Amino acid sequence: MMTNSTRIPDTDKPRIVVIGGGFGGLELIKALKKVDAQVVLFDKQNHHTFQPLLYQVATSGLETASIVYPFRKAFGKLRNFYFRLGEVIQINPDDKYLETSIGGLHYDYLVIATGADSNYYGLEDIEKNSLPIKTIEDAILLRNRIIKQFELALLTDDDEKKNSLIDYVIVGGGPTGVEIAGALAELKKHVLPKDYKELDFYEMDIHLIEAAPRLLTAMAEESSERAYEDLKKMGVDVRLNTSVKSYDGYTVTFNSGEQLITRTLIWAAGVSGVPIKGLEKANMVKGNRLQVDEFNKVVGYDNIFAVGDVAAIITDETPKGHPMMAPPAMQQGRNLAKNLIRMIKGDIDLIPFKYFDKGSMATIGRNKAVVNMKGLKMKGFIAWLAWMFVHLIFLVGFKKRVQVLITWITSYFSYDKSNRLIIGKPTIEEKQPEKISISS
Amino acid sequence: MMTNSTRIPDTDKPRIVVIGGGFGGLELIKALKKVDAQVVLFDKQNHHTFQPLLYQVATSGLETASIVYPFRKAFGKLRNFYFRLGEVIQINPDDKYLETSIGGLHYDYLVIATGADSNYYGLEDIEKNSLPIKTIEDAILLRNRIIKQFELALLTDDDEKKNSLIDYVIVGGGPTGVEIAGALAELKKHVLPKDYKELDFYEMDIHLIEAAPRLLTAMAEESSERAYEDLKKMGVDVRLNTSVKSYDGYTVTFNSGEQLITRTLIWAAGVSGVPIKGLEKANMVKGNRLQVDEFNKVVGYDNIFAVGDVAAIITDETPKGHPMMAPPAMQQGRNLAKNLIRMIKGDIDLIPFKYFDKGSMATIGRNKAVVNMKGLKMKGFIAWLAWMFVHLIFLVGFKKRVQVLITWITSYFSYDKSNRLIIGKPTIEEKQPEKISISS
Repeated sequence: MMTNSTRIPDTDKPRIVVIGGGFGGLELIKALKKVDAQVVLFDKQNHHTFQPLLYQVATSGLETASIVYPFRKAFGKLRNFYFRLGEVIQINPDDKYLETSIGGLHYDYLVIATGADSNYYGLEDIEKNSLPIKTIEDAILLRNRIIKQFELALLTDDDEKKNSLIDYVIVGGGPTGVEIAGALAELKKHVLPKDYKELDFYEMDIHLIEAAPRLLTAMAEESSERAYEDLKKMGVDVRLNTSVKSYDGYTVTFNSGEQLITRTLIWAAGVSGVPIKGLEKANMVKGNRLQVDEFNKVVGYDNIFAVGDVAAIITDETPKGHPMMAPPAMQQGRNLAKNLIRMIKGDIDLIPFKYFDKGSMATIGRNKAVVNMKGLKMKGFIAWLAWMFVHLIFLVGFKKRVQVLITWITSYFSYDKSNRLIIGKPTIEEKQPEKISISS
Repeated sequence: MMTNSTRIPDTDKPRIVVIGGGFGGLELIKALKKVDAQVVLFDKQNHHTFQPLLYQVATSGLETASIVYPFRKAFGKLRNFYFRLGEVIQINPDDKYLETSIGGLHYDYLVIATGADSNYYGLEDIEKNSLPIKTIEDAILLRNRIIKQFELALLTDDDEKKNSLIDYVIVGGGPTGVEIAGALAELKKHVLPKDYKELDFYEMDIHLIEAAPRLLTAMAEESSERAYEDLKKMGVDVRLNTSVKSYDGYTVTFNSGEQLITRTLIWAAGVSGVPIKGLEKANMVKGNRLQVDEFNKVVGYDNIFAVGDVAAIITDETPKGHPMMAPPAMQQGRNLAKNLIRMIKGDIDLIPFKYFDKGSMATIGRNKAVVNMKGLKMKGFIAWLAWMFVHLIFLVGFKKRVQVLITWITSYFSYDKSNRLIIGKPTIEEKQPEKISISS
């Protein structure tokens, strides 16, 4: 028997355990460089994923390796840092003890940075039959699926069957939904007609569904309008004030009773936090988030903290917590690191979290983006350059930045997306509903 | 019901069907650019794989996308070209008809370019428990496995268990075996100790097993010796005149009765052709290859050809056919293209295949390689540069070349391999013997 232990050495220094290496966890640990403590990271993956660009992997624009970064490489130089590939199953706050898939571990300070998962709002058939874009595996699966379905579409002359294979329904008009709709429209215009000369791309429909009366609800109204106009021009059918009632893997039914047929429903309609069992005293707010105070301390506990999507700092100014996106997570991570360093030094003077809203942005396609920054609204080409610049800056690793830049430059001039790959057989079939089999 | 047809249009032009887009098929189709015929390619993958660099993907040196290239991108500009993602199941030569996984198809000329698969020489337990490196999925699986096993090794203090996880046995001392042994030795020296400070890498053993009395039997003896010396210096345990009798996923037993313990046996001991059912009249030679004449025509048939690993041109000069590697396949592909163009024009004057042996090469590690070229033997740094140059030249696609070059340059100076990623959950467990589960 292999001993079922995490084998993290016990020292006389306090132990900070971080669960999850997303944006919040990554920034936290980077900023803990000089802490006089042992730092342990648990994650189910061995790498950080740059989620804002997952949609580019899904649409063949970027290679997988460009947007993931191994934790051990990121933190290789930190002393007193331990990474463990594993899942935290339960927290036992009374004993300051974690149960994980690889054994138990005591902590002195615990940081929950588990992020968010797709929120299906209880719609089980949608959860079962739709495709999310939250992990790198999701993105690869979606890429494989898209390409495979075009290969399959070549093989039928039944119009309904063919359309079910080449039509896409994207649910959720936030940045992810808008960006994937734009990227699919670009594929439809520039790439797929070269690859599949036998198909009539006039037949390919891209539907973007949003329950609210406008896209990109977190941005200014004129940005929403611009995104709407740009997508329309690119041939995307944008349906506002529309929500999905059911999806069986073939027929999407809307609340209005209207129906669409597609074998690919991409779910980008919302996220909910991923808390961990054992925090009975914690207050869960809307979106399955842990209520934390302005020091990111989970309300009800002394030494348990949460940052990022899973945490909600509820104040008068932020009655629903901060937006569930990368910048608040990163800023919370860095602020909490400062406070942890102070706490460990015995300094009781902690820094309350203040969100510096740098704004938000979404790209819609070649030369098209919308950007809202402090007092500044950009659109079109300038916004698109800003979008690329910001995403390159925040990507982890110099080599990745160079590679992504080269990839973007070459695809800009070649109107091409070169990663049109089906890789990983077992993964392809896995979430593919039976109806999609080649003989059906 | 989707109609079960390949939906390749019937025209008045002759139809050339190519099965397999490896080196032979790829070069053939490229050289058929101006043929007055319809060209159809069947492949189980939607991309060409640059097999000589698979081991670099397996050892985290290169990203997946760098060594695969979508067929539709490669051949997008050819007129009268059709690609179908599917598997050819049976040939019916009397009717000039193929049965495939996606329907039936008539051909006028058939080219079998199905390549070779790992040859386990009938050792079923080895086939079941070892890992090959023939496809991109194999390489990803091996990469995931290597990294996951180091993560697991951290969790045990049982020495045998730990060694079973961090020791490697590579069977086969040809270029693939030598290159993967060298790459693992580099990981052991430069990369893994930074990632896994908790492990003692003195304990990590890399065994390279070769049945013949020397490594790289296709090369000059002094190259074999140099490779042997280089690997020894890098800490690889090279065992010549040794063959494997059995492997249960944990214990490797050699013909001598000696045993080693490892959870990872990498099988690079040989390949055998992958012919297709239905060619009863064809003569199969050693290595499961189709005997073809000097025009690559399958002996016994008029309009069926074979190129590359699956084909053996048996003459007095080449009693065993040409070596099963990329250069003969590529040259045969190009020569057959010329002959097909002539045949279709009605020209009966065909060009017999002449192999131009440019030599062979293998890299052993940083600054180390052996190269045998016409009258020229190189080793060390110069050979290593030559190896890189040749591999860059033959990679498909300009962007890939730039990316691979950047990756090689950065890893040269950083002593780093940046793709230490576990990606694709379902794939990981799939071939992992039960013993490797974390709780065993």
